[in-house]
Amino acid sequence: MQLLKDKIIKEGKVLSPTVLKVDTFLNHQIDPLLMKEIGHEFATRFTNEVITKVLTIESSGIAPATMLGLEIGAPVVFARKRKSLTLSDNLFTASVHSFTKNVTSDIAVSRDFLHADDNIIIIDDFLANGEAVKGLLHIAEQAGANVVGVGIVIEKGFQDGGKNLRAQGVRVESLAIVNELEEGKVTFAEEEAE
Amino acid sequence: MQLLKDKIIKEGKVLSPTVLKVDTFLNHQIDPLLMKEIGHEFATRFTNEVITKVLTIESSGIAPATMLGLEIGAPVVFARKRKSLTLSDNLFTASVHSFTKNVTSDIAVSRDFLHADDNIIIIDDFLANGEAVKGLLHIAEQAGANVVGVGIVIEKGFQDGGKNLRAQGVRVESLAIVNELEEGKVTFAEEEAE
Repeated sequence: MQLLKDKIIKEGKVLSPTVLKVDTFLNHQIDPLLMKEIGHEFATRFTNEVITKVLTIESSGIAPATMLGLEIGAPVVFARKRKSLTLSDNLFTASVHSFTKNVTSDIAVSRDFLHADDNIIIIDDFLANGEAVKGLLHIAEQAGANVVGVGIVIEKGFQDGGKNLRAQGVRVESLAIVNELEEGKVTFAEEEAE
Repeated sequence: MQLLKDKIIKEGKVLSPTVLKVDTFLNHQIDPLLMKEIGHEFATRFTNEVITKVLTIESSGIAPATMLGLEIGAPVVFARKRKSLTLSDNLFTASVHSFTKNVTSDIAVSRDFLHADDNIIIIDDFLANGEAVKGLLHIAEQAGANVVGVGIVIEKGFQDGGKNLRAQGVRVESLAIVNELEEGKVTFAEEEAE
């Protein structure tokens, strides 16, 4: 997605060979118009699928997931990273390890919002080692729901998450795939692989 | 906002005289079309103001804030509840006590995204004791920014947050004000107070 790549080139900061900071438009400050375009692009790529629910994880997945939900007329469900006192124990749960933050958290989705007849698309801001997506897939599996695919804003192509998911037969659509972060420069994959 | 009140009546669950659960459309599952209408309603109520930034807090403020940002063409900044390793120490911070969860958390916004020339609107899903809004006001104050007002999806009119903020001269626009939660029934304030 050229608009997104342009934004990454213009505003992204390469902090190390593995860390790309995009908090001017994606995960701290949010560019709502870009999120709308991202929602539209996800909808276009999955236009051949009937999607009944958009599943994401707090917090940075919420804006792109909500824009996709608006575009396709489907509700959005976001997994919570901790249990809230106003949620009962009626939960699907999974463990997710964040290599960036070096913590393992439990994520949870109420059983009220995912069902065996759902066709789910999983949306997240980043795909690196794939831990968050694996947790969301595990939750969808507990619900007995069908997962039509995974939509990612930025995939780190030099980490294994995307490769492993695709090897398992999961359809992964990443709007920008970063192949290298070196000397402050972002290099994208030639084409977005499916 | 009648559409919102109808949704609360239809889907909200009164768990106790102080707890209203609206996780079917606002804070776990999200209704994107309702969020769009909420964004539009906030824009309409603050149409006389020039707003340069929408400030909210993760996670449930993000969807309505992003829809408002899209409507008025302003970026959204969400305060984080914990420090991420990819954020440096360049932060505005405040302490926020959640009476629902009975925990005090630090919230933080990068100094890169709020400035002295900003006209900020603060958006949140709920207003009860007003702790989150007070934290966000404190962060805006540290930036030297002007706060044009506060937009709330659901205000608990029987708790003191809204009253205290209005007494301090803060403009608070709540799209639904709940006056009472008794015997499973939601009673709204006659009119949304300004």
